[in-house]
Amino acid sequence: MVTLEYDGTSFRGWQVQAEGRTVQGAVEEAVERTAGERTRVTGASRTDSGVHAEGQVAHFDTGSRLTAEDFLRALNYWLPSDVSVLHCREVSPAFDARYSASSKLYRYRLLLCPARRPLRDRFVTRIHEPLDLEAMRRCAASLVGEHDFASFATDHTEGESSVRRVLRSEFAEEGDELLCFVEANGFLYNMVRAIVGTLLMVGRGKLTSQEFAAVLAARDRGAAGPTAPARGLALVRVNYPDDPRDQSVSPSPADRGGRGE
Amino acid sequence: MVTLEYDGTSFRGWQVQAEGRTVQGAVEEAVERTAGERTRVTGASRTDSGVHAEGQVAHFDTGSRLTAEDFLRALNYWLPSDVSVLHCREVSPAFDARYSASSKLYRYRLLLCPARRPLRDRFVTRIHEPLDLEAMRRCAASLVGEHDFASFATDHTEGESSVRRVLRSEFAEEGDELLCFVEANGFLYNMVRAIVGTLLMVGRGKLTSQEFAAVLAARDRGAAGPTAPARGLALVRVNYPDDPRDQSVSPSPADRGGRGE
Repeated sequence: MVTLEYDGTSFRGWQVQAEGRTVQGAVEEAVERTAGERTRVTGASRTDSGVHAEGQVAHFDTGSRLTAEDFLRALNYWLPSDVSVLHCREVSPAFDARYSASSKLYRYRLLLCPARRPLRDRFVTRIHEPLDLEAMRRCAASLVGEHDFASFATDHTEGESSVRRVLRSEFAEEGDELLCFVEANGFLYNMVRAIVGTLLMVGRGKLTSQEFAAVLAARDRGAAGPTAPARGLALVRVNYPDDPRDQSVSPSPADRGGRGE
Repeated sequence: MVTLEYDGTSFRGWQVQAEGRTVQGAVEEAVERTAGERTRVTGASRTDSGVHAEGQVAHFDTGSRLTAEDFLRALNYWLPSDVSVLHCREVSPAFDARYSASSKLYRYRLLLCPARRPLRDRFVTRIHEPLDLEAMRRCAASLVGEHDFASFATDHTEGESSVRRVLRSEFAEEGDELLCFVEANGFLYNMVRAIVGTLLMVGRGKLTSQEFAAVLAARDRGAAGPTAPARGLALVRVNYPDDPRDQSVSPSPADRGGRGE
């Protein structure tokens, strides 16, 4: 398994596309150059175009006899400057970056500032007007628990479940920024950005707390607010039961020969 | 006077050059488009190629009857995305962004992390090896006061004074970063980067505290360490006695018709 950080600005998201630069494509190419074999790299989250990651997790199978430390060094040598491997370890064949994950944590950065801030432009969405933070906090908190989030999903496939369990949904103030943290056992397409876009309507007084509750109950994307821009969003962390990263760094003999590095 | 933030990555520094994109050039062009007249824009600090600013200050004379608020809006409209005016106000003709400044504060960001961090690459210098922070703190503190800093000046002009008064020189730890703050009544060319480069030699055990003291006493650039990379450096704030920015935002009648916006 690898833990990745990337600046999503110049990528068409995680997933390999017919055209355009993707993070998955960049990692697969680095693995090929390192191990001499082409292999699929599976990410925990298929982050969208422009979305950043501080803690994306991915896995891949390899026949290579290189150690995790060798892979860490070689992948970082081959990867472009906007992607980096922060951590690498060999894991059991049963581990799947996507399906083994127990939850994922996203953070959305809102910059409360009338002027552009060039040093943070790539990573924030700027808000010019004052926000009713108390109302936003109340509505964010109401999302915690198991709900049908169809109102906050773009292009949701008919018939698939849109029920997810939100573990954390709250705001933190940090200097001139308002950070929205959402952690859930899974996310629908564009879910965090739709939630933030709708919470911003609440903050601007365009939607009451009652109306926000009605949006969630409607199970209809048309009921919610606009999708907030990608640049403010980052995948912060992917959690696993018995997280392999919490264990000793040196792989034990029992782990050897397993899936992924 | 204007307070500016910029990402220095794609600029050849502040000062207009025969060739290449400069911050001063970008601001002068925005002023010309706004006020319809070409005028010199004087910055408090001539930051180098790749150095960032969160609080550069500049002034210019104008015959325009536009208000400071009009200038703020129009300059930000015309400026490229990597420069922004954070604050703008009309000041007395006696105000000079460079010569009226009582002190300037710079911050140098060292990222203590073995792996590349794409989200911060533009703004930090990464350090792989452990540092002796206590020794670095001691040496940094020894710079406070009035000293001849010729050992920390690149291309210093013979005959000009290289004596400066350092008001603050210290490290702060912030997560996985080590921040070096240096405030002085004036800076020689490349002074902060030469200080940081030399303090890093101390941190790596290549220079003792006694040898660091000897470097300062030598008044010879050859005695000090290498110049640390530009990307880690940012001009944080320029201070003025009776700072115009601390006064009421709406210009008083007495201020009108004066120099700069």
